[in-house]
Amino acid sequence: MKISDLIITPLAFADPALLNSTGVHEPLALRTVVQLVVDGGLVGLGEGSGEREVLDRLELVRAAIIGQSVFDTSAIELIVAAVLGPDVTPLQKRAVFSIIEVACLDAQGKLLSVPVVDLLGGAVRSEVPYSGYLFYKWAGHPDAVADGWGEALDPAGIVDQARRMIDLHGFRSLKLKGGVFPPDEEIAAMRALAGAFPGMPLRIDPNGAWSVETSKYVARELAGVLEYLEDPTLTTAAMAEVAAVASMPLATNMCVISPETVPEAVRLNAVQIVLSDHHYWGGLRHTRELGAICDTFGLGMSMHSNSHLGVSLAAMTHVAAATPDLAYACDTHYPWNSLDDVVTTPFEFVDGALAVPAGPGLGVELNEAKLAELNRRYVESGRTTRADTAYMRLVDPAYDPTLPRF
Amino acid sequence: MKISDLIITPLAFADPALLNSTGVHEPLALRTVVQLVVDGGLVGLGEGSGEREVLDRLELVRAAIIGQSVFDTSAIELIVAAVLGPDVTPLQKRAVFSIIEVACLDAQGKLLSVPVVDLLGGAVRSEVPYSGYLFYKWAGHPDAVADGWGEALDPAGIVDQARRMIDLHGFRSLKLKGGVFPPDEEIAAMRALAGAFPGMPLRIDPNGAWSVETSKYVARELAGVLEYLEDPTLTTAAMAEVAAVASMPLATNMCVISPETVPEAVRLNAVQIVLSDHHYWGGLRHTRELGAICDTFGLGMSMHSNSHLGVSLAAMTHVAAATPDLAYACDTHYPWNSLDDVVTTPFEFVDGALAVPAGPGLGVELNEAKLAELNRRYVESGRTTRADTAYMRLVDPAYDPTLPRF
Repeated sequence: MKISDLIITPLAFADPALLNSTGVHEPLALRTVVQLVVDGGLVGLGEGSGEREVLDRLELVRAAIIGQSVFDTSAIELIVAAVLGPDVTPLQKRAVFSIIEVACLDAQGKLLSVPVVDLLGGAVRSEVPYSGYLFYKWAGHPDAVADGWGEALDPAGIVDQARRMIDLHGFRSLKLKGGVFPPDEEIAAMRALAGAFPGMPLRIDPNGAWSVETSKYVARELAGVLEYLEDPTLTTAAMAEVAAVASMPLATNMCVISPETVPEAVRLNAVQIVLSDHHYWGGLRHTRELGAICDTFGLGMSMHSNSHLGVSLAAMTHVAAATPDLAYACDTHYPWNSLDDVVTTPFEFVDGALAVPAGPGLGVELNEAKLAELNRRYVESGRTTRADTAYMRLVDPAYDPTLPRF
Repeated sequence: MKISDLIITPLAFADPALLNSTGVHEPLALRTVVQLVVDGGLVGLGEGSGEREVLDRLELVRAAIIGQSVFDTSAIELIVAAVLGPDVTPLQKRAVFSIIEVACLDAQGKLLSVPVVDLLGGAVRSEVPYSGYLFYKWAGHPDAVADGWGEALDPAGIVDQARRMIDLHGFRSLKLKGGVFPPDEEIAAMRALAGAFPGMPLRIDPNGAWSVETSKYVARELAGVLEYLEDPTLTTAAMAEVAAVASMPLATNMCVISPETVPEAVRLNAVQIVLSDHHYWGGLRHTRELGAICDTFGLGMSMHSNSHLGVSLAAMTHVAAATPDLAYACDTHYPWNSLDDVVTTPFEFVDGALAVPAGPGLGVELNEAKLAELNRRYVESGRTTRADTAYMRLVDPAYDPTLPRF
């Protein structure tokens, strides 16, 4: 069954004013959805980054994958690599291929009338737990109406946000995006969460905003509070220094981001948990392989998320259900963005988890009207790249995102 | 689609008097073929070890996998592990699971009308090259008629055997099972092969029969002659000592045999090529994962073989075609055993390679009459285990297989 077309649609969708170490989320997040058409008209869906360079690369490989069998994803990966050439890094190639691979697997599942999880070895769990992803945030974007979630700039605000997240979605673990305020304030927020939700697994992720010394200090202060500490500091070597003294596991999606980055992390025992992300690792089968690598080297496995829509959430849920090693609740930004989803039936968390979509394929359908609307918004926005720092500087012209911040 | 039955059939088939470091192949090799039946009567085939303990374990897990979805191979692996319990090692569990996994994939492919290779990411090569597997051998078994291949006990005999292998099957690389005669004789045989077949990739595998010093000596003597040197000595640490001075890559299927054995080999840089074997690594998907592990750590990948029949050869060919990292010609004993195959159309090598069977599933059919005949031979033989040393001692009562032999 041959691929006959690849329709590439950039989208922009509403995003609250969520703070992080590089600045603040803009009012519109960018994303790409592809429709991979096979002979006979059946369509497989894929989703990934909306950055201009990813769109350009998808356009570049489009002609080369037309005519390929939709089952030949490994061969398509080689084609993508060859077309993009040596000036595009393996990581950048995987970001492109992952979108196509998911679309191929969705099409395969639809052709064969099986869910994608069954093409990955079947489900080892019938539902996939996600963690509630907490952010420091403004009440709304500058000059815009409040988003309804309210402001969260201190421990009380974070606890309120967490309570609402749990009331709405039932999450059984919580993660705070840190690196925003001085570490003592964020330590206080984590302690407030621990006090408000006793026994709840808690994580904080400052995206490498801390020095090694600060990281060690936070690790000491939050001993017994955290399930894991995510990317306190940049570079594998620095993470290893922190890991040597931290009482909790260190997790990462910043120093282990590709096969190329695994050996050093293993050698230095720099991290104990790898956050997978099929968009970075080159699709769902490579994410399963990452699970095998983690298992082989005694590493735990969790899952990273960027702002995304329901096609990616379906893919994340299928691969998490298929991956025995993925034993931690997965991250997702979905609750912040689900009002604008392009799938006909947006996902709803039950007790903080998603049932594995029954398929066929990913088990989601495209809402064509919504797709057109979000594409219109993309075009009208004139935006082509994410720029959290530039956006923050509209409010705080002196904002300096240089790491480590603290 | 549920599994409704697992029919387990032990087989015995003719094997020539092939010599190795532990003794000599017996007149009958043992093997197991399973027929995994799904609702509606469709059958998936699997093949693996014929050792009594493997048969017993298959019987033990049989009831537990009936009723499972044939697509849920990861869940079935967990069930196999749970049923066999903590007294059975992970390696032993994988030997059992691999047989079932291949049968599940064959059934999946037949249900979905796709070849197994398409369930593994599709083919990255349309044909899989195999190496010609040379053995020192007797002209025939004691008190039996000669097998037609003639005696091969010296360099001239090995070259003659190689020539016949190449004439019959077109192999474009050659491997000698060593560890049989003093190393200088085997060095002479490899040099004779290099002289007779200039440019042909050559390997020798003494199965750990040499000391570290002997291994270093052979590596020096065969510099420029070998494509790779396989398991010259036992243990990962000893292999690392040899690897530190050898000019050619070291390969192994003895010190890296499972995920548990990978980290030490990586840490010590003990081997440069891992010989995969889906029977050891727990099936075809785990073999693909081994490819990812090898790729991540800069290791090459080849394929190991024991005596086997056509169901395993089909599985080996599908997974080799699907695994980009498997860039060396694969080992197979098949030319020594193909007269007794249980598939209706035995494989034929063309230019030393096999085309990927077109499927559905593995693309092979069971010859029911042959299955019954080989099972009868198994029952009549009274044999339950492989015993190369005991068999050798019928001829040479003083034979001592203690390693290192040299």
